[in-house]
Amino acid sequence: MINKLVEKITKTQAPIVVGLDPMMKFIPEHIKAAAFKEYGETLAGASEAIWQYNKAIVDATYDLIPAVKPQIAMYEQFGIEGLIAFKKTVDYCKSKDLVIIGDVKRGDIGSTSEAYAVGHLGKVTIGSKQYYGFDEDFATVNPYLGSDGIKPFVNVCKEENKGLFILAKTSNPSSGEFQDKLVDGKPLYEVVAEKIAEWGADHMGSCGYSYIGAVVGATYPEMGKALRKVMPKNYILVPGYGAQGGKGKDLVHFFNEDGLGAIINSSRGIIAAYQQEAYAKFGAENFAEASRQAVLDMQADIAQALAQR
Amino acid sequence: MINKLVEKITKTQAPIVVGLDPMMKFIPEHIKAAAFKEYGETLAGASEAIWQYNKAIVDATYDLIPAVKPQIAMYEQFGIEGLIAFKKTVDYCKSKDLVIIGDVKRGDIGSTSEAYAVGHLGKVTIGSKQYYGFDEDFATVNPYLGSDGIKPFVNVCKEENKGLFILAKTSNPSSGEFQDKLVDGKPLYEVVAEKIAEWGADHMGSCGYSYIGAVVGATYPEMGKALRKVMPKNYILVPGYGAQGGKGKDLVHFFNEDGLGAIINSSRGIIAAYQQEAYAKFGAENFAEASRQAVLDMQADIAQALAQR
Repeated sequence: MINKLVEKITKTQAPIVVGLDPMMKFIPEHIKAAAFKEYGETLAGASEAIWQYNKAIVDATYDLIPAVKPQIAMYEQFGIEGLIAFKKTVDYCKSKDLVIIGDVKRGDIGSTSEAYAVGHLGKVTIGSKQYYGFDEDFATVNPYLGSDGIKPFVNVCKEENKGLFILAKTSNPSSGEFQDKLVDGKPLYEVVAEKIAEWGADHMGSCGYSYIGAVVGATYPEMGKALRKVMPKNYILVPGYGAQGGKGKDLVHFFNEDGLGAIINSSRGIIAAYQQEAYAKFGAENFAEASRQAVLDMQADIAQALAQR
Repeated sequence: MINKLVEKITKTQAPIVVGLDPMMKFIPEHIKAAAFKEYGETLAGASEAIWQYNKAIVDATYDLIPAVKPQIAMYEQFGIEGLIAFKKTVDYCKSKDLVIIGDVKRGDIGSTSEAYAVGHLGKVTIGSKQYYGFDEDFATVNPYLGSDGIKPFVNVCKEENKGLFILAKTSNPSSGEFQDKLVDGKPLYEVVAEKIAEWGADHMGSCGYSYIGAVVGATYPEMGKALRKVMPKNYILVPGYGAQGGKGKDLVHFFNEDGLGAIINSSRGIIAAYQQEAYAKFGAENFAEASRQAVLDMQADIAQALAQR
């Protein structure tokens, strides 16, 4: 799957992942009205609104991008109905040949991590049968529990040719509270990154990159620069572009010399583009076209930054 | 909800939480056969088997215990159908007046943690209506992202009189890989515990304990002793009893002098008791009675250890 991701990035010339994080306040009124007319202001109504909103954005952008990253929390908040919309979104994106990064940030002790890995990336065994649960292509994983919380994910990834992005340095303001603490003279996120490089060496793609990548926030470009060197063969998933403050020029150090090695996420900057001044001319009715233009603009911003480095 | 938990612990004299972690290999054949007969060897069949298994164990133990802790990964591995069994289990335990600790180990950046908090502990807003998603009483949370990943959970807990157990030192063998690293001369888990005490001071119950607790593994009794002092007013959820190796005598230091302050989890030791030699006499048909006996034995083990300290 890392090979497919790299191929698609090369083909689209867009190291971009669209974060499908459908907060209700992003969804245009006409989409919500139609869903509520059918199902009422209910969990099922919210689920339908999310699904129609996602579908329109995917239809308007899938030819430009290699991957999507649905943030499961935005679905899980609506309980079972929300997760039905998550699963529909995953399946639909798959039908459009997009790579799906399940932003689930799971992680637990060994047997529990195995269950998460099976549910999101692998197949669960029921009697003599096997079934996929959510069936994403990549999952994000939290490293706090250490190797035996990570290895079951890696094992399932090996069986399924799938991958992970493990949190190293997150994009939020207080990420430094624990992640920046110095241990043995270097920050914890660097210690984690060294382990990611080690775990990743065990599951390499033929493209030269590992199936096991890292998450490093766009909001910390200097740390991105340092971590790029610590993990030369691991893809870096970079959240925090746009709404969280990251810009194209901040991102160049996340990439290797080959122009690969990083994929930049934008969520509300793309899916709620129509709510921004720069795209207001599209209007809420044409929200999906606004999202398409935002992808094109993001692609140009990153390409320009890479050309000028 | 911390007041209710403490009240129920005092009343039952059992600082015990039963981990409802229904792996397929634990479920007796006759339960699986009945479920598969109705739904086939499908995700729905697995969901039905899990639900019937849980229901029987809850029916056999609810009068002895204050709380249950369903591990969501064990349900999530079966996709949507598995999560339906999770929700049925939560609702059923609530009808039996049990405190429900959702072992979800979520945690993300601020807006995303807010969505998880809303989904598991609070109410989501849809138009003019509000709905509970999964509606547990407590949730476990991963601290790696720092304060702004935790505060949205605390805020929802304050609105709902609910609580958290935040990971400090986990029970697994490799938990020390990052958690034991020395920062400023003390281990990271202690730095996290100090923050838990700080976060918890913001949301105190009338019982004298905070709504915000910590997870510290039974497998590290010495660390439990140290962390008890760092977090005197925070409940400690202690996994790792039984199958993972923790014993009653290892647990005494997790408790305060008042005999409160800790709640010990056992999962397979109780729910799959019938598979152990000590309870084999019950047979698979009477698995729930075996679970009841295992609860009684665990209660006696802990009471004896506390009496002898």
